[in-house]
Amino acid sequence: MNPDRLYLFDTTLRDGAQTTGVDFSLADKIAVAGLLDRLGIDYVEGGYPGANPLDTEFFATKRTRRARFTAFGMTKRAGRSASNDPGIAALLDADADAICFVAKAWDYHVRVALEISLEDNLAALSESVEAALQRGREVMVDCEHFFDGYKANPAYALACARTAHEAGARWVVLCDTNGGTLSDEVERIVAEVARVVPGAGLGIHAHDDCGCAVANSLAAVRAGARQIQGTLNGLGERCGNANLVTLIGALKTKQPYASDLTIGVDGEALSTLTSASRALDEILNRAPNRHAPFVGASAFATKAGIHASAVMKEPRTYEHVGPETVGNERRVLVSDQGGRSNIRSELERIGIVLDRDDHRIGRVLDEVKRKEALGYAFEGADASFYLLAKRVLGEVPDFFHVERFSVKVERRYNALGELTTVAEAIVKARIGDEVTLSAAEGNGPVNALDLALRKDLGRYQHLIADLRLVDYKVRIHQGGTDAVTRVLIESGDATGVTWTTVGVSPNIIDASFEALTDSIAYKLMQAEGR
Amino acid sequence: MNPDRLYLFDTTLRDGAQTTGVDFSLADKIAVAGLLDRLGIDYVEGGYPGANPLDTEFFATKRTRRARFTAFGMTKRAGRSASNDPGIAALLDADADAICFVAKAWDYHVRVALEISLEDNLAALSESVEAALQRGREVMVDCEHFFDGYKANPAYALACARTAHEAGARWVVLCDTNGGTLSDEVERIVAEVARVVPGAGLGIHAHDDCGCAVANSLAAVRAGARQIQGTLNGLGERCGNANLVTLIGALKTKQPYASDLTIGVDGEALSTLTSASRALDEILNRAPNRHAPFVGASAFATKAGIHASAVMKEPRTYEHVGPETVGNERRVLVSDQGGRSNIRSELERIGIVLDRDDHRIGRVLDEVKRKEALGYAFEGADASFYLLAKRVLGEVPDFFHVERFSVKVERRYNALGELTTVAEAIVKARIGDEVTLSAAEGNGPVNALDLALRKDLGRYQHLIADLRLVDYKVRIHQGGTDAVTRVLIESGDATGVTWTTVGVSPNIIDASFEALTDSIAYKLMQAEGR
Repeated sequence: MNPDRLYLFDTTLRDGAQTTGVDFSLADKIAVAGLLDRLGIDYVEGGYPGANPLDTEFFATKRTRRARFTAFGMTKRAGRSASNDPGIAALLDADADAICFVAKAWDYHVRVALEISLEDNLAALSESVEAALQRGREVMVDCEHFFDGYKANPAYALACARTAHEAGARWVVLCDTNGGTLSDEVERIVAEVARVVPGAGLGIHAHDDCGCAVANSLAAVRAGARQIQGTLNGLGERCGNANLVTLIGALKTKQPYASDLTIGVDGEALSTLTSASRALDEILNRAPNRHAPFVGASAFATKAGIHASAVMKEPRTYEHVGPETVGNERRVLVSDQGGRSNIRSELERIGIVLDRDDHRIGRVLDEVKRKEALGYAFEGADASFYLLAKRVLGEVPDFFHVERFSVKVERRYNALGELTTVAEAIVKARIGDEVTLSAAEGNGPVNALDLALRKDLGRYQHLIADLRLVDYKVRIHQGGTDAVTRVLIESGDATGVTWTTVGVSPNIIDASFEALTDSIAYKLMQAEGR
Repeated sequence: MNPDRLYLFDTTLRDGAQTTGVDFSLADKIAVAGLLDRLGIDYVEGGYPGANPLDTEFFATKRTRRARFTAFGMTKRAGRSASNDPGIAALLDADADAICFVAKAWDYHVRVALEISLEDNLAALSESVEAALQRGREVMVDCEHFFDGYKANPAYALACARTAHEAGARWVVLCDTNGGTLSDEVERIVAEVARVVPGAGLGIHAHDDCGCAVANSLAAVRAGARQIQGTLNGLGERCGNANLVTLIGALKTKQPYASDLTIGVDGEALSTLTSASRALDEILNRAPNRHAPFVGASAFATKAGIHASAVMKEPRTYEHVGPETVGNERRVLVSDQGGRSNIRSELERIGIVLDRDDHRIGRVLDEVKRKEALGYAFEGADASFYLLAKRVLGEVPDFFHVERFSVKVERRYNALGELTTVAEAIVKARIGDEVTLSAAEGNGPVNALDLALRKDLGRYQHLIADLRLVDYKVRIHQGGTDAVTRVLIESGDATGVTWTTVGVSPNIIDASFEALTDSIAYKLMQAEGR
């Protein structure tokens, strides 16, 4: 038998736009629609034309090639005909393939929020569906609060679903709007609805308020539903919508879904899942969730020693799917919880291949342990780990040596009587026989020190000309200012490559100095092909 | 019928310690154990005594009052007796109420990773359980890879569970170690195991690699399991463990769980769920997940619009549980009215009571908005929020004024040829008519500045004599050293009271200066009873 078709409906640009702190521009919306289209999503809900100028403009032209471009809106108001409702008119004017109406399916809401009769709500629903069908649109209906409504008044919730179906809607979507329903209840209720509206015409729209949106979506599919609504990275109001990225990973790799169902995302698109997820974060300027299923930077990372040796021997032992399937990669973290095999595989990943029995692996491990006891962490600082290993191997030349530095921060009134703060640094460096003395001002002590350090490294200066600071992080261990400070510095160059170094000291300037000089040393190692 | 007892087992300090970037100190571990104990968790797994010095030290004494303090470790090695195994000895020496052994339940792993016979693995399991029982410990067994093992070789996986049960283990815990199992499969397999080991002795240990760890835990409970293992905030290797915070929220508020089961977390503890979750992030210096179910800052937030007015009319329309139940709060975003009443209730919380129509509420709100746009965050800095409001109200005297300060950090060779770093600060302050000039050395620039600032504040000096720094945190916003630096300083005094202040500037020294002077001002306000 052919696998059943399951349809994916993305609402990143509509429900996802309700996320705290998310604010799409027109360019963002166009970029996200393209991302979804390439991934193989079936329906891309672009927004609510007529509700705001941005969404109206976005719907001036169709924004997808393969996916059905879908406009979201309310059913017509009670007391006027669909043809005389400006909201419906704006929806029908949108250059969309499909229209998704939202209708209330909880009698309590119809009374409290809409303040109309239950019958008028059903009539508005069927008239709206018919009006959109007449204009040649594919129509679906989001039954808002369906599960709460069903528990309160099953007959009325079912009447809404039946009315939408009988009016000709291709999809009747059962929404857990408040996100409070758990999977077993979702499965039971969807199965009951499927006796009224065939499962092939049912959809599920889950929210993550109980941390179960993905499982709830799968539960609905088990009960017969064949459309899943969700968002990239689980964007959405409050705790977010069902995460389509996670769902795609599960539907493509887990049984019985992978065998019994097909989705629009093919194997090639699946291998872009990680980059698609990160691309959305990039558009929104959000830090990616390291722990996201399938696509997080840590999703295939192992820290424990015993696990690490097994992962290297046989990845299947500790990986539920191969990371390459979803475009992600395996990482074995360096930490004093890990052992020799962690270190060896990490060295291999950064390009230092040592024999399993090489005694220097033990020396690198000892050095990592010694430094971690002082407060270092190499998990996020590959470049410092690389330098540590290369130093143990005796392969780092003495590029330059800072003989002294000083940093001064002064706050005082200037000649105009204004309070100003000035930060300046002086660095004296020896590069072979050459001695340089550089001074720089910065908007803070670390910035000044960084600028002074990179101002004149003699014969190496041309090699670090394009070096720049990308990110700077500080973590204090234990309480008080006299605790140990750990600084992580991410650097980059003109080629787009970035690398991270770490420094530790009770003194934040010292710690920053160490991370800054390591960053320069790493860049010089790379430039000289070491 | 009495509700069935469901036991919660927390592994934040063991499996959670595997999280990328998480690095508990002894003080952190003690703080987390206390947090879990107060919340009403039944078992607190503290780590792996014998595996590293930190965990051995942590188990030198029992760290919980109510919860059973649990040590984790491997079963004895094949080829030696339990009494002659140093790993087992370290476990038995730990001051723990219970021991949780991990044992492999997937035949493939026994062969590939352990390289021993299937029978030897079972023998090691039962001997280890017996050895711990003889020493009076409660014993449980984590059956690693149980679900993958069951699918590959159900007879062997069941033999492991049966062996553990028959040897006397109180709990046989079924682990989805790789996190690749979905809820329906978990429910089916747990039900099948419950025919061999009674559900009252079964536990579930789920990972979130498919975004279903919470749902999987609930599925196991439906199938009869009565212990759930998880972590605070879903910490854990890769994508994390089942999030106990979410599970507690669901188990206490959702049917049929809330009626059919009791857990150790009572209603009062439930109302501390949000602060417990944030306290863990605080200990780890991680930004809390705004979108976390139940406890996230956005979990009960509504963007302005139709939802917002409905929420204000009737909260139940858009809230699956009342936010106060879990110690969280409702937020209506971008709504001036919501903003005003939020500010008013926040002011009331810190002891500043203003009339609903007081126009100064709007001025405080404007000042908060202005400062938040600059990068301030007052959620964790009550003392600075207090000062902000009191300044708007004109109730903060001009205690002292710093006319200038300078901070210098210098690294150079001393007379003995040793590389040393010196940090010193000079502060010139005016207190009324008196001018003081103080200098101090510190082990870093902030420490030096702090010491110089508090060295001589003239007539106020005796009031701040017992002031001390408790904690210092730095967060950088946006990339590069020229980004904005936010400093949070927690201070305390001899009475044991602590308070937190915030400072923001591109310059970390300036930001620290602001937070330090606010801390002193707050202490003076309190000392003078304002």
